[in-house]
Amino acid sequence: MTVLPTASRLRPLGGVDVTIHDGLWAERLRTNRERTIPHGYAQLRKVGTLDNLRMAAGAAAEYRASADSGGAVLPFLDSDVYKWLEAVGWELGTAPDPELAAAADEAIGVVAAAQRPDGYVNSFVQVLRDGQPYRDLAWGHELYCVGHLVQAAIAWHRALGDDRLLRIATRAVDHADAALGEQSGRDGIDGHPEIEMALVELARVTGEGRHLALAARMLDLRGHGLLGDGRFGPAYWQDHAPVRTATEVAGHAVRQLYLDCGAVDVAVERGDDALLAAVRRRYDDMVRTRRYLTGALGSRHRDEAFGDPYELPPDRAYAETCAAIASVLLAWRLLLATGEPGYADDIERAMHNGVLSGLSRSGTEFFYVNPLQRRTHRTFEPAGHNQRMPWQACACCPPNLMRLLSSWPQYLATGDDSGLQIHQYATAEVRSPAGAVTVHTGYPWEGRVVVEVVRSSSAGPWTLSLRVPGWCAGATLSVAGSEPAPVAAGYAHLTRGWQPGERVTLDLALPVRRTAPDPRVDAVRGCVAFERGPIVYCVESADLPAGVVLEDLRCAPDREAVTVPRPDLGAGVVGLDVPLAPTGTVPAIPYFAWANRGAGGMRVWLPTGGDDTGGPPPAG
Amino acid sequence: MTVLPTASRLRPLGGVDVTIHDGLWAERLRTNRERTIPHGYAQLRKVGTLDNLRMAAGAAAEYRASADSGGAVLPFLDSDVYKWLEAVGWELGTAPDPELAAAADEAIGVVAAAQRPDGYVNSFVQVLRDGQPYRDLAWGHELYCVGHLVQAAIAWHRALGDDRLLRIATRAVDHADAALGEQSGRDGIDGHPEIEMALVELARVTGEGRHLALAARMLDLRGHGLLGDGRFGPAYWQDHAPVRTATEVAGHAVRQLYLDCGAVDVAVERGDDALLAAVRRRYDDMVRTRRYLTGALGSRHRDEAFGDPYELPPDRAYAETCAAIASVLLAWRLLLATGEPGYADDIERAMHNGVLSGLSRSGTEFFYVNPLQRRTHRTFEPAGHNQRMPWQACACCPPNLMRLLSSWPQYLATGDDSGLQIHQYATAEVRSPAGAVTVHTGYPWEGRVVVEVVRSSSAGPWTLSLRVPGWCAGATLSVAGSEPAPVAAGYAHLTRGWQPGERVTLDLALPVRRTAPDPRVDAVRGCVAFERGPIVYCVESADLPAGVVLEDLRCAPDREAVTVPRPDLGAGVVGLDVPLAPTGTVPAIPYFAWANRGAGGMRVWLPTGGDDTGGPPPAG
Repeated sequence: MTVLPTASRLRPLGGVDVTIHDGLWAERLRTNRERTIPHGYAQLRKVGTLDNLRMAAGAAAEYRASADSGGAVLPFLDSDVYKWLEAVGWELGTAPDPELAAAADEAIGVVAAAQRPDGYVNSFVQVLRDGQPYRDLAWGHELYCVGHLVQAAIAWHRALGDDRLLRIATRAVDHADAALGEQSGRDGIDGHPEIEMALVELARVTGEGRHLALAARMLDLRGHGLLGDGRFGPAYWQDHAPVRTATEVAGHAVRQLYLDCGAVDVAVERGDDALLAAVRRRYDDMVRTRRYLTGALGSRHRDEAFGDPYELPPDRAYAETCAAIASVLLAWRLLLATGEPGYADDIERAMHNGVLSGLSRSGTEFFYVNPLQRRTHRTFEPAGHNQRMPWQACACCPPNLMRLLSSWPQYLATGDDSGLQIHQYATAEVRSPAGAVTVHTGYPWEGRVVVEVVRSSSAGPWTLSLRVPGWCAGATLSVAGSEPAPVAAGYAHLTRGWQPGERVTLDLALPVRRTAPDPRVDAVRGCVAFERGPIVYCVESADLPAGVVLEDLRCAPDREAVTVPRPDLGAGVVGLDVPLAPTGTVPAIPYFAWANRGAGGMRVWLPTGGDDTGGPPPAG
Repeated sequence: MTVLPTASRLRPLGGVDVTIHDGLWAERLRTNRERTIPHGYAQLRKVGTLDNLRMAAGAAAEYRASADSGGAVLPFLDSDVYKWLEAVGWELGTAPDPELAAAADEAIGVVAAAQRPDGYVNSFVQVLRDGQPYRDLAWGHELYCVGHLVQAAIAWHRALGDDRLLRIATRAVDHADAALGEQSGRDGIDGHPEIEMALVELARVTGEGRHLALAARMLDLRGHGLLGDGRFGPAYWQDHAPVRTATEVAGHAVRQLYLDCGAVDVAVERGDDALLAAVRRRYDDMVRTRRYLTGALGSRHRDEAFGDPYELPPDRAYAETCAAIASVLLAWRLLLATGEPGYADDIERAMHNGVLSGLSRSGTEFFYVNPLQRRTHRTFEPAGHNQRMPWQACACCPPNLMRLLSSWPQYLATGDDSGLQIHQYATAEVRSPAGAVTVHTGYPWEGRVVVEVVRSSSAGPWTLSLRVPGWCAGATLSVAGSEPAPVAAGYAHLTRGWQPGERVTLDLALPVRRTAPDPRVDAVRGCVAFERGPIVYCVESADLPAGVVLEDLRCAPDREAVTVPRPDLGAGVVGLDVPLAPTGTVPAIPYFAWANRGAGGMRVWLPTGGDDTGGPPPAG
């Protein structure tokens, strides 16, 4: 389990409890395991990230880390190794792989050797900063790195019962606790939140209250100006307002979302409803006013920040892959804490669009930035701005994708003795304490989901809960051959004594939806987008006939888009034909599939050719 | 003269040849002289910029310079002193001021003391980098600083015949020439173009061909990857494509425009029509596809860059004050080289909107960034993002405004023995070789311009040329009491023997114009803006009744805006009442006057309430 709250509304299942067998996610997960993760290891070796840790262990080499403008060396690259290790832990927990295991053993050995006798481990500080720890909490990312080390350790502990990393991580945390804990007399927080959620999870593993106390302390210390203004103001590092009183998300999107993950974790462990409510308030406001249609977050490049409300430019969207991933981590925690289906809807939107767009179909190239529009004619662009890259100088996104995809089966369902809740749909087996089921579906391309009970743990009744997505206006449910009956968005709860072989059939209507932006989103005024099920579509210049310019297209206001099979983009993929004004159609493809056929133009939001300002107002 | 080409279509006049007596520019120039420039000196002392140079001269102090993210110290602050000195030079040339003169003497003394015996002077390198010059041409700005030193020196030479700075600057240039000139064997260019135009002007002053040769060499060395990729790619420092072949502006806006200023200067001196044509091609494309309505340039915050064509977000406009200033410098060079009136139109647009917005009405606060929209509700903003500031950590804009305003009278007219060309209108005296005139006008608030001949140098005919702005659809001209006759946009040329007391009356119709954006500007689709004469208007929340939300306003498509006197914003200022849908009006004020009444919301582009997609398509 990526998280395992001591008490929550919903109870996570483990990595071995959900197995995805077929469909979009099976393909993406197989690619992650077979191509992306091995590619990641090759890159960590190639660019020097592993060697940096070897230097900390005393090896002679040249510290290799990309330089920022002004020549500052990026200090957080150790975390790439930890995120990669986390992914490998989840993978090895589901099935062995000798090559991956050998690579991980090597990496764990390097980290173990780099750790000092006092427990501290950070290659940047040990090699380039004379080993003086916690001197630059604002920019240094030392605790951020410890947080990722802890999360890798927990994956290996939970998935494999292998505690080599847990011993290293615990000693690193002890070092930080001695320097910055309550008894230290020093109030210190990291410029990049991350350790908070890691500490809570460590407390859940170790049962040690001091880990939870350190997390809570680091939460409470925020918002009091400890880190100063820096270049981008205190919101950049989440030090502009206390976690309990800030009403809006602000500053660097990933940092805000990681911080709020930690806040939910602390709130759940301590039964701190006020803290939970503060996070939910921010989250709700974010979804309403600052989220892209793709689930992407963060509209400003300069400081990787959320913009102001409704500041959602499609072309200059920053929309960092890591921010979409962070929103999944946060929505998952809120789903577990509350059981509210909207959080599962949000996970679905982010995963199928703004997260998945970060990865090439090949699995070995990555977007850092995920805009909703790219112009066909662009001026000189540096490498990495017009296509996915095999790696980035700041390589946070690639291994973040790896660990999320490796743990993705854990997000599909929850369960305990009283029931099983299915949140995301894929052809899969799901085993919970109450019982086990198989799911068969062509989702997200087809709307039929068949759940068959394989086993009940007792003869008594238990509840099978199936999510009806919020976007679905026409769902029916048939239980054990009964006549299909309409079900509303939310969870359909079916409580009965379940016999093996009994089936539930959920049919989700998947009409193409024409989505108008919230009228307060200035940047896409006069445009519409097309969605079908959880998939957001885009028009890409690779699909345009010669001589047709993407920017000149206008969408017809009065004709409907129709579906078109697109096997060229993957098995089962459904594309659209979108009506144009004054006549004709243009192909649209799933947004996540863009930029796999060259570096052309792309638009999610299409200008309308007529008067088309009506419609429901989700944020653009 | 800010520039004095050896040969050009139009011939600049000197700072003493044009005196502005009344109106908007008289007020702004008086404020610059009496408040802004003294404030600038106080800031240079306060923030340590002067002391940095004192340290280079051996004084004991702490080097004070703002730190970039990652802690890198800004290396170019000496240039603030030079730009301030340039402004003072122009001011003292028009009228004495003992206090300003004393302050300038102090600053010149500091610079003289800082200069090493070998001619090199750069406080950052001398104090913080062991005095090793030209080691970091990409980021170091050493030649950029020399360029500004040269321009200050030329102002003092031309305005005052005072060559103290010229001696310093020439030695600094000689040092650079020895290290990087043809004979040095080292191909080096500065990450920030600026020295190129300064070197050409120095050649015009000294008559030394080697200064021109060095400028030409540094132009030709660009575009071959000498500076590497850096964080933002080679376009950031104008090293992505050769100056002669690049077809579009790209990268950092100020750097591109400064570079093209140098390119025009070299082209004019060498009669290099191909090089001039290359600049004009880029300039024309820029005006058509990448310029804001306010004349502002640069739509990206992250790397201070031009965006792609039609990427012109009003809210996230970077629109650096320095970029608008740089566009004036470039348009002026192109006007002199070609005599084409469009360049004067462009100067007018930039000066009255995107330049002037950089300065508070008080004259002591500055915007670095000049967006065309600010939302009423904003999230946490660091200082300087929501209001003008007395100074900036990177203080390039304030002294750039000072030197431009101090030299602004020189941009009003050109002339030689054959005639006098008036490009910009203000109540002023203009003296040229052919003759002298007075101009009386309420421009830009009123459209009548009366030019009276004061003196003719000979009894023979000479040509008085008056610019009819490109935006003006209804202009009439009356010569010496003749019936007013329509004149088209461009220059009205009047050739005759002029007698003292003869008058020409130009009447420019000033209806309110409703401007629709180019349909390719995605970010303002469905909006209109209002202009009158050279003034772009905006709606500011300071003018809204309580309870009215700026973002909810919709402009009526079918009613006209009307003018309203706004003496509260300055003598003679004309505001508008803009029609709203479904009913009512809202006040609009000149864009340059915004943010003088608190930090509220503002919009130049207003969404329309009805079907309003027609109209002419200037870039948004």
